[in-house]
Amino acid sequence: MVPDAYPHDPVPVGSDSGPGLFSESARVEIFSDGVIAIAITLLVLDLKIPEGEPGTVAHRLLEQWPAYLAYLASFIYLGVVWVNHHALFTRISRVDNGVLWRNLAMLLAMSVFPFPTATLAYAMQHGTHGDQVVALSLYGLIISAMGVTWMIMFFYLEQRRDLLSDDLAPGFFREERRRAALGILSPVVAVAIGVVVPAVALFVFLLIPIFYGLTTEGWTPPRRKA
Amino acid sequence: MVPDAYPHDPVPVGSDSGPGLFSESARVEIFSDGVIAIAITLLVLDLKIPEGEPGTVAHRLLEQWPAYLAYLASFIYLGVVWVNHHALFTRISRVDNGVLWRNLAMLLAMSVFPFPTATLAYAMQHGTHGDQVVALSLYGLIISAMGVTWMIMFFYLEQRRDLLSDDLAPGFFREERRRAALGILSPVVAVAIGVVVPAVALFVFLLIPIFYGLTTEGWTPPRRKA
Amino acid sequence: MVPDAYPHDPVPVGSDSGPGLFSESARVEIFSDGVIAIAITLLVLDLKIPEGEPGTVAHRLLEQWPAYLAYLASFIYLGVVWVNHHALFTRISRVDNGVLWRNLAMLLAMSVFPFPTATLAYAMQHGTHGDQVVALSLYGLIISAMGVTWMIMFFYLEQRRDLLSDDLAPGFFREERRRAALGILSPVVAVAIGVVVPAVALFVFLLIPIFYGLTTEGWTPPRRKA
Amino acid sequence: MVPDAYPHDPVPVGSDSGPGLFSESARVEIFSDGVIAIAITLLVLDLKIPEGEPGTVAHRLLEQWPAYLAYLASFIYLGVVWVNHHALFTRISRVDNGVLWRNLAMLLAMSVFPFPTATLAYAMQHGTHGDQVVALSLYGLIISAMGVTWMIMFFYLEQRRDLLSDDLAPGFFREERRRAALGILSPVVAVAIGVVVPAVALFVFLLIPIFYGLTTEGWTPPRRKA
Repeated sequence: MVPDAYPHDPVPVGSDSGPGLFSESARVEIFSDGVIAIAITLLVLDLKIPEGEPGTVAHRLLEQWPAYLAYLASFIYLGVVWVNHHALFTRISRVDNGVLWRNLAMLLAMSVFPFPTATLAYAMQHGTHGDQVVALSLYGLIISAMGVTWMIMFFYLEQRRDLLSDDLAPGFFREERRRAALGILSPVVAVAIGVVVPAVALFVFLLIPIFYGLTTEGWTPPRRKA
Repeated sequence: MVPDAYPHDPVPVGSDSGPGLFSESARVEIFSDGVIAIAITLLVLDLKIPEGEPGTVAHRLLEQWPAYLAYLASFIYLGVVWVNHHALFTRISRVDNGVLWRNLAMLLAMSVFPFPTATLAYAMQHGTHGDQVVALSLYGLIISAMGVTWMIMFFYLEQRRDLLSDDLAPGFFREERRRAALGILSPVVAVAIGVVVPAVALFVFLLIPIFYGLTTEGWTPPRRKA
Repeated sequence: MVPDAYPHDPVPVGSDSGPGLFSESARVEIFSDGVIAIAITLLVLDLKIPEGEPGTVAHRLLEQWPAYLAYLASFIYLGVVWVNHHALFTRISRVDNGVLWRNLAMLLAMSVFPFPTATLAYAMQHGTHGDQVVALSLYGLIISAMGVTWMIMFFYLEQRRDLLSDDLAPGFFREERRRAALGILSPVVAVAIGVVVPAVALFVFLLIPIFYGLTTEGWTPPRRKA
Repeated sequence: MVPDAYPHDPVPVGSDSGPGLFSESARVEIFSDGVIAIAITLLVLDLKIPEGEPGTVAHRLLEQWPAYLAYLASFIYLGVVWVNHHALFTRISRVDNGVLWRNLAMLLAMSVFPFPTATLAYAMQHGTHGDQVVALSLYGLIISAMGVTWMIMFFYLEQRRDLLSDDLAPGFFREERRRAALGILSPVVAVAIGVVVPAVALFVFLLIPIFYGLTTEGWTPPRRKA
């Protein structure tokens, strides 16, 4: 039940808010989709042309295997994040500045992703054991930071239920917070494994988003109450 | 005829699923369009500035001819893929997680395209015969992989006809699978030619998407049954 | 007056063509807008970080002036092209494969723009007189090629008036073809000037799109006949 | 009150202007959103892979701290600009060529942002004191130029009230101009500080957009008069 007159006076969805066709929520989602689509596509720039001595292209392509794994892991992460971001915004019916800035923080963590990915790929190929642990830690740090931005959004939305669809299932955020917590903590496990065998940590980083994807409630919008 | 209550309970198109204006299918298509638009535009980064000794700009521009061919081939491939992707999604009326993840796999194959393109352009200019065959194989591999992701989507959709427009022509997927199979196998021919004369393979890779484009049913939506 | 049953059977606009909200024409425009937005933003990658000996940042920033001019010219070109592309598509009410492929050719010429821009900026800074004429010619060639793709689209549309809005002013294409011809020929003048003084040609390339922009009918849709 | 027949005859919003679903204002906003989304995501390319001697990844990551600050400042700037750009366009109900070209100027200033950001990050790490002041000045110059493009748009819109929503609060532009003036002048303060201690100026540049974000009226559309 959304009260008609709310103290904070958020933007009513579907209201005739100026000339736009879109609801405010849709606009935020379109911009966010754009940022995620660009970040996920920029990842390919982390794959390096196999330049060097003639006759070594095959060798150089193969020795770049950590770059492929890191690319794949980051692609799946951002893909899963996109699905979850969409799922979240189908629950939001009104957007206020609080949502806007928290969403920008989420986009910041997503759009920086090509950097730790490239660093990880570089260190796994050319770095010492110490370099690799550092790069794994940076990669894990960004994933954890992303989870933190989601957690911040969840806490905000729980206190501003007037911004949410009124048919939202009661347990939604409890479930979602559990998943965000997993996102914050799982990199710690991967990095801990990486201290022992860095290459294995790379595979763990690949498995985490696959697990996420398999368990995501994903695209399906909330069940109507009735 | 789509049953009203389906066990998997997919998202009804055009239902009031939260505040969004778009159907779920349209959202997936907008995100996919974004990824394809970015990948197709990033290809230009594979064309190198003709840096070097003063007075050699013309020479360096000309010796880069394999890069132009590879750019052109990849641009047309992605253009054709975009048309076909759109044509596919006009047949999909509901989106579930199965479609989502299979679509992400398709996007993965599309967005990685600038990498084999750059590798091919590099090897054709600076590599040995062996390098060139390797680069042609990598390029063909990605195109085949793209065809495989489409095939996977087709098999899934055939088993989930509840996700499809109910006015879909019966022979649609039989026809589409034939085209996907062509996409998987045609690179094998190109690479086989490339083992003999690599430069010719480059032209074959350029001809394949042109053939595809000419024979595509393309943009036209399915005929209404009535 | 668009006949109801046309031999080529193009997609009726606004028809319920599958689940999409958008008309086919709008979809093409959204994809095209994406490609143009990306190409116009990628131009910034042609501006180089002033790396080198400490204490030379100011000097290196200033000596890069041809890069700024080339950036500005290309940005305005693509901006003008975007406005004209939109103006064109407000005249198109139906999209068939012929429009699709011709539009892809237009997008090809637009999205390759960062390459001749970077080449021009490089040659004007580091090249010989000959290098500069070559780079100016490449830049002019792409602009002319862009004009050619527009001309091809115009000729097609004139023969397929069933694809156009039925309230299109009769003289529209005569006027537009004149502008496209100007786009094809004006680079010849700029390059001819460049053979004498390359730097002046750079300014001419900057002036052409400004002139274009000032004289564009632009955004305004066709007057209704009634 | 928008007169029905206006001398300049701008595009009526929501009119059936050709086949498009979108109002003209929405189309401009979608294109602008695309450019901003790309520029904000391209910023990540300014973060450099920590290449170098094995064993130095941690060190190289840490010494890049000015790049992180510059990245963060530019990300927040563009985020704030996006919010304000959207807020502006909810006030515009009609688009004419004057708005179009002024908007392109705004987009130019936004899309060039990765360049001064990268220059600033480079100079703060590798430059002399003089280099750093130059880079801070360039960064400030672009921010001021962005403010100027906004000011130009505001002055234009004030003289073309027929382009605006008729429920616009009277004081809107007075308030907005004040904010634009702040955007033009605040970089002067930052650069002045930078002449003394460059590193502090970097923090000031980070604080400005945060202040902007906190004080923005932001997303909320204008109050209805009634």
